[in-house]
Amino acid sequence: MAETAAKGSTVWAVEEYAVHEEPYYLPIGDEVELFQTAYEQRIPVLFKGPTGCGKTRFVEYMAYKLGRTVTRVSRGDGEAADHRMPLVTVACHEDLTASDLVGRYLLDTDGTRWVDGPLTRAVKVGAICYLDEVVEARKDTTVLIHPLTDYRRLLPIEKLGQVVEAADGFLLVISYNPGYQSALKDLKHSTRQRFIAIEFNYPPRDQEAAIIAHEAGCSSQAATDLSKLGEKVRNLKEHGLGEGVSTRLLIYAGRLMAKGIPPRRACQVAVTWALTDDLEVQRSIEEVVTSIFE
Amino acid sequence: MAETAAKGSTVWAVEEYAVHEEPYYLPIGDEVELFQTAYEQRIPVLFKGPTGCGKTRFVEYMAYKLGRTVTRVSRGDGEAADHRMPLVTVACHEDLTASDLVGRYLLDTDGTRWVDGPLTRAVKVGAICYLDEVVEARKDTTVLIHPLTDYRRLLPIEKLGQVVEAADGFLLVISYNPGYQSALKDLKHSTRQRFIAIEFNYPPRDQEAAIIAHEAGCSSQAATDLSKLGEKVRNLKEHGLGEGVSTRLLIYAGRLMAKGIPPRRACQVAVTWALTDDLEVQRSIEEVVTSIFE
Amino acid sequence: MAETAAKGSTVWAVEEYAVHEEPYYLPIGDEVELFQTAYEQRIPVLFKGPTGCGKTRFVEYMAYKLGRTVTRVSRGDGEAADHRMPLVTVACHEDLTASDLVGRYLLDTDGTRWVDGPLTRAVKVGAICYLDEVVEARKDTTVLIHPLTDYRRLLPIEKLGQVVEAADGFLLVISYNPGYQSALKDLKHSTRQRFIAIEFNYPPRDQEAAIIAHEAGCSSQAATDLSKLGEKVRNLKEHGLGEGVSTRLLIYAGRLMAKGIPPRRACQVAVTWALTDDLEVQRSIEEVVTSIFE
Amino acid sequence: MAETAAKGSTVWAVEEYAVHEEPYYLPIGDEVELFQTAYEQRIPVLFKGPTGCGKTRFVEYMAYKLGRTVTRVSRGDGEAADHRMPLVTVACHEDLTASDLVGRYLLDTDGTRWVDGPLTRAVKVGAICYLDEVVEARKDTTVLIHPLTDYRRLLPIEKLGQVVEAADGFLLVISYNPGYQSALKDLKHSTRQRFIAIEFNYPPRDQEAAIIAHEAGCSSQAATDLSKLGEKVRNLKEHGLGEGVSTRLLIYAGRLMAKGIPPRRACQVAVTWALTDDLEVQRSIEEVVTSIFE
Amino acid sequence: MAETAAKGSTVWAVEEYAVHEEPYYLPIGDEVELFQTAYEQRIPVLFKGPTGCGKTRFVEYMAYKLGRTVTRVSRGDGEAADHRMPLVTVACHEDLTASDLVGRYLLDTDGTRWVDGPLTRAVKVGAICYLDEVVEARKDTTVLIHPLTDYRRLLPIEKLGQVVEAADGFLLVISYNPGYQSALKDLKHSTRQRFIAIEFNYPPRDQEAAIIAHEAGCSSQAATDLSKLGEKVRNLKEHGLGEGVSTRLLIYAGRLMAKGIPPRRACQVAVTWALTDDLEVQRSIEEVVTSIFE
Amino acid sequence: MAETAAKGSTVWAVEEYAVHEEPYYLPIGDEVELFQTAYEQRIPVLFKGPTGCGKTRFVEYMAYKLGRTVTRVSRGDGEAADHRMPLVTVACHEDLTASDLVGRYLLDTDGTRWVDGPLTRAVKVGAICYLDEVVEARKDTTVLIHPLTDYRRLLPIEKLGQVVEAADGFLLVISYNPGYQSALKDLKHSTRQRFIAIEFNYPPRDQEAAIIAHEAGCSSQAATDLSKLGEKVRNLKEHGLGEGVSTRLLIYAGRLMAKGIPPRRACQVAVTWALTDDLEVQRSIEEVVTSIFE
Repeated sequence: MAETAAKGSTVWAVEEYAVHEEPYYLPIGDEVELFQTAYEQRIPVLFKGPTGCGKTRFVEYMAYKLGRTVTRVSRGDGEAADHRMPLVTVACHEDLTASDLVGRYLLDTDGTRWVDGPLTRAVKVGAICYLDEVVEARKDTTVLIHPLTDYRRLLPIEKLGQVVEAADGFLLVISYNPGYQSALKDLKHSTRQRFIAIEFNYPPRDQEAAIIAHEAGCSSQAATDLSKLGEKVRNLKEHGLGEGVSTRLLIYAGRLMAKGIPPRRACQVAVTWALTDDLEVQRSIEEVVTSIFE
Repeated sequence: MAETAAKGSTVWAVEEYAVHEEPYYLPIGDEVELFQTAYEQRIPVLFKGPTGCGKTRFVEYMAYKLGRTVTRVSRGDGEAADHRMPLVTVACHEDLTASDLVGRYLLDTDGTRWVDGPLTRAVKVGAICYLDEVVEARKDTTVLIHPLTDYRRLLPIEKLGQVVEAADGFLLVISYNPGYQSALKDLKHSTRQRFIAIEFNYPPRDQEAAIIAHEAGCSSQAATDLSKLGEKVRNLKEHGLGEGVSTRLLIYAGRLMAKGIPPRRACQVAVTWALTDDLEVQRSIEEVVTSIFE
Repeated sequence: MAETAAKGSTVWAVEEYAVHEEPYYLPIGDEVELFQTAYEQRIPVLFKGPTGCGKTRFVEYMAYKLGRTVTRVSRGDGEAADHRMPLVTVACHEDLTASDLVGRYLLDTDGTRWVDGPLTRAVKVGAICYLDEVVEARKDTTVLIHPLTDYRRLLPIEKLGQVVEAADGFLLVISYNPGYQSALKDLKHSTRQRFIAIEFNYPPRDQEAAIIAHEAGCSSQAATDLSKLGEKVRNLKEHGLGEGVSTRLLIYAGRLMAKGIPPRRACQVAVTWALTDDLEVQRSIEEVVTSIFE
Repeated sequence: MAETAAKGSTVWAVEEYAVHEEPYYLPIGDEVELFQTAYEQRIPVLFKGPTGCGKTRFVEYMAYKLGRTVTRVSRGDGEAADHRMPLVTVACHEDLTASDLVGRYLLDTDGTRWVDGPLTRAVKVGAICYLDEVVEARKDTTVLIHPLTDYRRLLPIEKLGQVVEAADGFLLVISYNPGYQSALKDLKHSTRQRFIAIEFNYPPRDQEAAIIAHEAGCSSQAATDLSKLGEKVRNLKEHGLGEGVSTRLLIYAGRLMAKGIPPRRACQVAVTWALTDDLEVQRSIEEVVTSIFE
Repeated sequence: MAETAAKGSTVWAVEEYAVHEEPYYLPIGDEVELFQTAYEQRIPVLFKGPTGCGKTRFVEYMAYKLGRTVTRVSRGDGEAADHRMPLVTVACHEDLTASDLVGRYLLDTDGTRWVDGPLTRAVKVGAICYLDEVVEARKDTTVLIHPLTDYRRLLPIEKLGQVVEAADGFLLVISYNPGYQSALKDLKHSTRQRFIAIEFNYPPRDQEAAIIAHEAGCSSQAATDLSKLGEKVRNLKEHGLGEGVSTRLLIYAGRLMAKGIPPRRACQVAVTWALTDDLEVQRSIEEVVTSIFE
Repeated sequence: MAETAAKGSTVWAVEEYAVHEEPYYLPIGDEVELFQTAYEQRIPVLFKGPTGCGKTRFVEYMAYKLGRTVTRVSRGDGEAADHRMPLVTVACHEDLTASDLVGRYLLDTDGTRWVDGPLTRAVKVGAICYLDEVVEARKDTTVLIHPLTDYRRLLPIEKLGQVVEAADGFLLVISYNPGYQSALKDLKHSTRQRFIAIEFNYPPRDQEAAIIAHEAGCSSQAATDLSKLGEKVRNLKEHGLGEGVSTRLLIYAGRLMAKGIPPRRACQVAVTWALTDDLEVQRSIEEVVTSIFE
């Protein structure tokens, strides 16, 4: 257990966070070219796709890639040495309000002090702002999204009585999972029609095997078997499984196997039990596991 | 990517924001004359119409136009050199309260300090105040709308114990999309009967083609094809499509095409996927796309 | 557009607001005598009636009239030179709480400072307090209405630990629109049975024509036609129209016509589109318009 | 209109408010003796009965009467010269919380300052505390009612970390209207079984006539007619009338008649229109009115 | 009325409150031994039973009794002279939050000051903490109950970033009335399975007569009759009576009778009207009353 | 009662709390090895299982065990002498918000001061953070769980405008009871698929008897009988029992028996009454009790 030697935590300011190393990402189609064109035109982008299919990693990959070609916003010192594209990610949830995104007043020894929220920081430094699962957020966030996604590119900060025009590098990217949507939580058309949309899905079997092998450090045979398992489990989706298995869970199984946990047990805890509490569905998945890892 | 060179963000006070350059707007009928007459008479105006049909741009166009003919409120210096009409826009949402519009107290080193909200600022400087999608706002905004839209033209500021009589230039303009209305979110008759109403719709095909060509910088043929696509997709509305495609999305498609994305792919991400998650409806739209961009 | 020359906004303290000029009001029956008798006896009054039939204007007319006969509350200087009756109007809404009416503490450099709300101000100076659409207010306002409307004439201010006995001139007047009432939003009997009730309706045709001519500055023929339109549209109420057209909208139509907008177009924006989004009902109204303005 | 000469408002501390003059109250049965016995034994009392039947006036009458026989709490000066029984009345409503009754911290120049609420004040000075329509209050008030109404007579003040034992004179009296109760708003049995209950109803016809004549200053004939009207209207209760007419409304009618408003018109505004918006029911009441005031 | 001579209120700190005099309690079975064993083992206890059957009095009796045998927590001075067991009682309600139990920050001249809530006080001094009707409390109280009722005996104080290990004398006792429980308000199994449960019921007839005679000071015959009434009314429970009559109400009736109110009238106000508003059920109870007090 | 001699309470900072003594835990299968492998790989873990089956004790056992092999985070002094693994446990509930986990600002004499919440403390010192019954927590906690459970291991602290990268030792462990889940309270798939899952159940009969004997200090016969009782009562689960009996309740029964309470009475209060209020089900359990403890 020497590799888990003690190490303290690291703290960044939100707008200084950028992707340091090239994330491992295998392009499936023309999504890289599409996103790059949209970014050049500053057309806001919406990602659609199921859990764990790689949306978050794609936006990190693109931020890394664009950071290498775009001259970054100079802040005071005029220097452009730092070519990283700042990426501000917000995982949305049903209590997320506009204030959480824009900022708020804090009491200080010198009275109140305004603190910019993550969206305002992204607007000011010209970052990509990624609102993950945006339909979960409260509806008052709409007030922020609309003027930022048409030709005005404005962020109203009501509590300051200000209107901020976005820095040139800024782009709003949002995501959601169509499988979840209910009538109550849907993107209004007036919001939706402000984005071009890229649909994502799980990678094809061979590409997924390559990803698993790379990320889990397991044998190539195990990776191939696990990608086969992924494909088959996803076909169970019509049989009571809420959502297919993510690549991430297959990688977990690979990592457990690489450390000596027997394949069937590894698949049980990382796939079967992780996916569902339904005994019937668990049994169906177990059968698939057994057919592959005899 | 030289055109996206770094540029910082700009910040205005809400009431100083005005439309600097004439927005591109193609009048469809007598809406310009109607709005001008209503403004002269200070009759409040309600815009009705679907997503992305140009309501926001129209009010910006009118603010620009009126700014050239109306002598602006002099503020302290008595000068009338600045002929811009201030325009205060608020995108309403279901958490928007009267306080968000009127103002609130903030704690300061010197105790509390009152900060006017966007509506109060508009009332005081005599701006046009545009409340977009007003039915989304919380019902306590009614208390503000009523006395501002009859002959009293008063804004009560309860927390200050004050009543403000609007400056001469002030006019309240609101908008909503009748396609969205439910029983729960309807304008009360006592509010509604305080406005004349102008109904908007998508522009006719030729005018839309002209708009697309102008805004997307694409070929005239592409613009014509896209306006044809718009018309046909809107006819699908009875077949499960919540709302027709906006002119904005057609422009996005045009901009992608102008940058080399193949037409069908551009329409897929900017129209088909952007409009709906329903596979059936997506297929219908794809057929229309294919019939136009063979 | 010379008549819309620039003019700044004016600000009054709530309790100093009074009706300066005699509002134009045409009595329909004995409502003036009834209200005057109720005021002399300090019997609280409830107005019932549809949108825009003149309830607010009537209470302003009565405040003006009573101000000329009642000696006003002297404040400190013992003088009675100012014969205006202060009128405090509150447009109620579903977020209006007792605190909004009574007052609240504000933080100041010297700690908290109590600020009287509009009702407390009215109670202290002996004003008429008009709560418009009172059923919309939150139920905690009941705690204030009850002891103010029986022989005690007391206003409890819980946060100050005080009980205020109303100044002599004070009277509570409330209004509501019976057409709106649902089971959820009804005046409780224990509240209701503290008021005498005056029912209002739209004025008869001739009187309405006179009002339109006076207020819109249009021709007498146009005013007569518009009053005819009002009568006919109100008869459509059983055919899907939520509420009849208000006199106010007819005046808007008259003002547009007086400025050169063709009668049918003026009626379309000021009546048809303003009243409803329902295409069927719009068509019915258009037919009535056409039959009058051929 | 000389009798309405200007007079300022008066302000008392809540716990100093007492009934100064003997309220006019005509006992119907043994309710005075019952309440007096319960008070001597400090048994909490619950009043049940319809709107405007005199519950509030009865508790004021008893407070006045008990104040003449009970030696009042001496406060500091040991004197017992002031024989008035303090009466703290709280009109409950659905936003009334325990904090509203017990007290709260306020920010002051010297930090926070605790301010006792009306119940705490009543507990400390030994007043009668009357919670009117108690079922309307929020459920956290239960925490206060329970320990105050058993042998402990304790008031917990959680925010101070204190428990207060009630002064000897204290008694809790509550009221509610059984006609209103729904499943949602019912007194829990654990609360209810802490009170003896006295049921009230409208006074018999002769007694009501006497009350009307005394309070309205109208002729004895008019008072008799109005009491007859009251009896008949209450019989309409099964025909769609939510609740019978209160004695208060009959007195209003008498006062209008005494000032010259014709009887039928006075009954229309004070009874018919005041009671209901239902045209059918209004017609039934009008018939009763006509049969009495031909 | 000499016995009601003026006396001021007394104030204790919550954790200093203890039962001073032995409460009158007649054991029904082995509940005293059971509770004593549970306390020695520090096994948390749950009381179940109907309104007014003596649960609160039992816990006060046990606190008094245990206080005579347990050496109390010494606070600073090391002395053990005060043998009283502190008892902290909290009547739960649906707005009771974890903060109400644990404590909160208050603003002071020296900034914020933390004030321990009643549960924290009980944990620190080693008191019995009695949460009455615990299912009424908000669910965030669970966070406090769980670690305090397993072998850890920990109270997390999140706002202080602390974890408090309970003083040795501490025990949590909770109660609820199974007759009230709905699906919405039920003790979760994960909470419930942390307590042993003692079920309570009304005392048998003879014991109840002895209690009534002792507490009401009425004649032994009256007490016997009232206990008979109690038994019969409880049998009516299937006939529309929500809950049987509590011993407390029977004592009230006895006290009124002892002061000269006729038995039937005393039973009417203390039992019949106190128990129900339903005329049918009232009539059934009246019949029982008449059959006993002929 | 000498063993319950007075002892004050102890207070720790949240992040300093660790398991001091090896908790008594009997492994059922390979759960210890699985958890250890997951911890080495820093794969987040989810525990599923019924009430009282030992999930909390297992995580405490593992924290103790890992603390003996892992070098703990040095804090400032560089020392690694303290080999305990800090364990931060949070019992989730429906009012638990992200702020409760991350931290908040408190007002101080020097203005606001930020106080880290338990999750932030765990992230910073590299503790195991155990969120018990995580589905009960409010949905805004998702924003924290997601970036902490993928390769980023980031904790966003929005109010500070910071992003914290977790210290090396940190791992998130969550638990829930699948028997409770409703549609409303389910782990979203996007959250769920970030954890491997270990399912727990009650221990087999022999192991449970060993646990009871060890924990209750009762006779080995009594322990065997109680484990038999446990097994049989759990089989009643289909007959109306919400959930089987926990090992904890069986231990309570053993402890009461060890102190002289007769077995059937001990089982009645610790099992039958503790488990259910349903008379039918109580009778079934009593029968099982009688069949074992004749």
